[in-house]
Amino acid sequence: MRLSTNFTKTKKQVPADEQSKNAQLLIQAGFVHKEMAGVYSYLPLGLKVLNKIAQIVREEMDAVGGQEILMTALQVKERYEATGRWSDKVVDNWFKTKLANGTEVGLGFTHEENLTPIVKSYLNSYKDLPLAIYQIQTKFRNELRSKSGLMRGREFLMKDMYTYALTQEQHDEYYEKIAQAYRRVYDRLGIGERTFKTFASGGVFSKFSHEFQTVSDAGEDTIYLDKKRKLAINKEVFTDEIIHDLGLTKSELEEVKGIEVGNIFSLGTKFTKPFEVEVEDAEGGRVAPLMGCYGIGISRLMGTIAEVMSDEKGLIWPENIAPAKVYLVRLGEKNAKVADELYENLLQIGVEVIYDDRDARAGEKFADADLLGIPYRIVISDKTVEAGKHELKQRTEAQAQSLGLAEIVKTLAGDNKV
Amino acid sequence: MRLSTNFTKTKKQVPADEQSKNAQLLIQAGFVHKEMAGVYSYLPLGLKVLNKIAQIVREEMDAVGGQEILMTALQVKERYEATGRWSDKVVDNWFKTKLANGTEVGLGFTHEENLTPIVKSYLNSYKDLPLAIYQIQTKFRNELRSKSGLMRGREFLMKDMYTYALTQEQHDEYYEKIAQAYRRVYDRLGIGERTFKTFASGGVFSKFSHEFQTVSDAGEDTIYLDKKRKLAINKEVFTDEIIHDLGLTKSELEEVKGIEVGNIFSLGTKFTKPFEVEVEDAEGGRVAPLMGCYGIGISRLMGTIAEVMSDEKGLIWPENIAPAKVYLVRLGEKNAKVADELYENLLQIGVEVIYDDRDARAGEKFADADLLGIPYRIVISDKTVEAGKHELKQRTEAQAQSLGLAEIVKTLAGDNKV
Repeated sequence: MRLSTNFTKTKKQVPADEQSKNAQLLIQAGFVHKEMAGVYSYLPLGLKVLNKIAQIVREEMDAVGGQEILMTALQVKERYEATGRWSDKVVDNWFKTKLANGTEVGLGFTHEENLTPIVKSYLNSYKDLPLAIYQIQTKFRNELRSKSGLMRGREFLMKDMYTYALTQEQHDEYYEKIAQAYRRVYDRLGIGERTFKTFASGGVFSKFSHEFQTVSDAGEDTIYLDKKRKLAINKEVFTDEIIHDLGLTKSELEEVKGIEVGNIFSLGTKFTKPFEVEVEDAEGGRVAPLMGCYGIGISRLMGTIAEVMSDEKGLIWPENIAPAKVYLVRLGEKNAKVADELYENLLQIGVEVIYDDRDARAGEKFADADLLGIPYRIVISDKTVEAGKHELKQRTEAQAQSLGLAEIVKTLAGDNKV
Repeated sequence: MRLSTNFTKTKKQVPADEQSKNAQLLIQAGFVHKEMAGVYSYLPLGLKVLNKIAQIVREEMDAVGGQEILMTALQVKERYEATGRWSDKVVDNWFKTKLANGTEVGLGFTHEENLTPIVKSYLNSYKDLPLAIYQIQTKFRNELRSKSGLMRGREFLMKDMYTYALTQEQHDEYYEKIAQAYRRVYDRLGIGERTFKTFASGGVFSKFSHEFQTVSDAGEDTIYLDKKRKLAINKEVFTDEIIHDLGLTKSELEEVKGIEVGNIFSLGTKFTKPFEVEVEDAEGGRVAPLMGCYGIGISRLMGTIAEVMSDEKGLIWPENIAPAKVYLVRLGEKNAKVADELYENLLQIGVEVIYDDRDARAGEKFADADLLGIPYRIVISDKTVEAGKHELKQRTEAQAQSLGLAEIVKTLAGDNKV
């Protein structure tokens, strides 16, 4: 993409009304626009990052047999009355509105009540189970406070998966499979090292739920961490009994702040019973399937990565979710031919490039390359053209290399064919 | 996709609560699930179609220089007060709700008021214009009646593009370019032949707007059609004066029903003035940019295509938006090896296949292949395996061909490499 055609621009000022680092950086870089607290529009470069995160999550959900659907924001009141979740006293972050005929409807904050009747209408026999169904969809949660930028949204993009199983064993197997898929997601997003499976409160149907917590001072949760075993306990269930049950030692645990970047939950028959979902098992008995739910906030992940992978100069995106792999700086109009050609060559081999072809000072272009957090920066200037060797520098390194055009292309090609 | 793993099933019964053919067929085929009137969830096969339509629209918007973003559903009241559109008397299909602190917010039915302040924050000079910015996003419209299935939704997926231009000439040029992009969209979706550019009422800033109307008895609009010139006039502006202005002859016009599958509109400074958007022009004067807006209902297109491209057996998808190119029927367990191999071979060359590997009767499988509307059907049975020639039939043809496996692969490969 030629930067001269991109309608957003970076901002020098830190936005005055944002306290969180992720929102400050993402707004300064022109990735998002704040509509109100916890409600952000995604601008071209930000949407690219959001879509790439979503695609990685999608691939890992597909890999464990997830079937993708898309449910609605508007929710039918009666379904939530059936499970006792319509009342604002039970669920304190509903957005509600009315149809033109006066019928009350809600905006979905989660979709167990939406999906379970759908699944019921197609479920004939135990042979149809287990099932894993997911969507990547916009959720609405009426948070009283929303000061963490993209990390706690009132309107946000979420992947929510739901499993339906015949037996506890079948459920447990899927639950573990999805926990492993979550690990792969965080690894691919570059936050695997600092993200920990965390025991949290369960509910009626299981002793624990599990969260995935990314260690960060900006986190809203307090967790107790056993780094060696890659396990943590959320403060909400941090008791001597549970430390003992998990075979951990209190003195070895470290208290840190964490951002909840995923959670998985055993729901038992909490939602299948109220909707009278039953299948006939192999012995002819009637069984209510056991449910699990599995959430990953896509936009929260974007905020989390912005929060934990950045420095005083700006964002630092991992290569596979960066809006582009390369930021190509052209200094001087008369070097357009060399720069244009390199730009075209890189596009041709499938390397995404932000081509800074603007009429701007070198310092401004370098600052923008850093602020946008693009993994590689190339500089083509009078000096480099004369030398026949141009600058290639990684965002995370101080020193640039001097390389010929062919070498630059080869270095950046990666697995793509040159 | 192996059909045995897909959680949806076709339904024999026409849903009792649907009057429109598109919703009846899409529900029977398991493509969508009705949540309430005008509110549908997209199930795996339906989501594939929806995404393919969206992708075609995206490609054509990108091709005319559109920059994709994603705005929010939640809307700030003050922005609509600035343009006089907050009142329910002015806009009669608002959904409104409240933040936890009592602040009123709306759910976006269109996004001029959302985008214009975003654009304002980045617009420095006339050199930044023209701009074309679009999104593919969920819209909410509180329709009193919603009986046309996916063709008139309360919650629906829409592509909305907005242009900002310095001069009338620049605006007109973009307007025409996008009108042509719309034609390409309808052509690629297989409804180009029956879709007509239609003169409709304009507004303060231009004599006309333009709609694209797909001729269908299920349409809600009445239009007067000049088939030869591929032009139509909406009943709302059908006067002798306008017929004359357009150089048409009343007696040659045919009255038909149309489904509005797109509209393009010149907005002048209706939205840039209230938000005080101005740029400096080349002469140093201050100019409010001229806007255009350009809508295509993605989910409405899916409903429209289901409506106009179907027969008594079911849906008939054009190849480039069908959930798969091929429906592979395997009859008899013992033919699994031949069928599995063909399935894998087709996947390998990039042909999407729904593989009916279920333990079901031949009649049921054939009926489902037709109902789902998949362009090609292959049958592998005892008889065909014995003959070494299998059946390949197009959805739109009555007769099957008998072909060897290699010939089938070659026929279906199309532009893909064998």
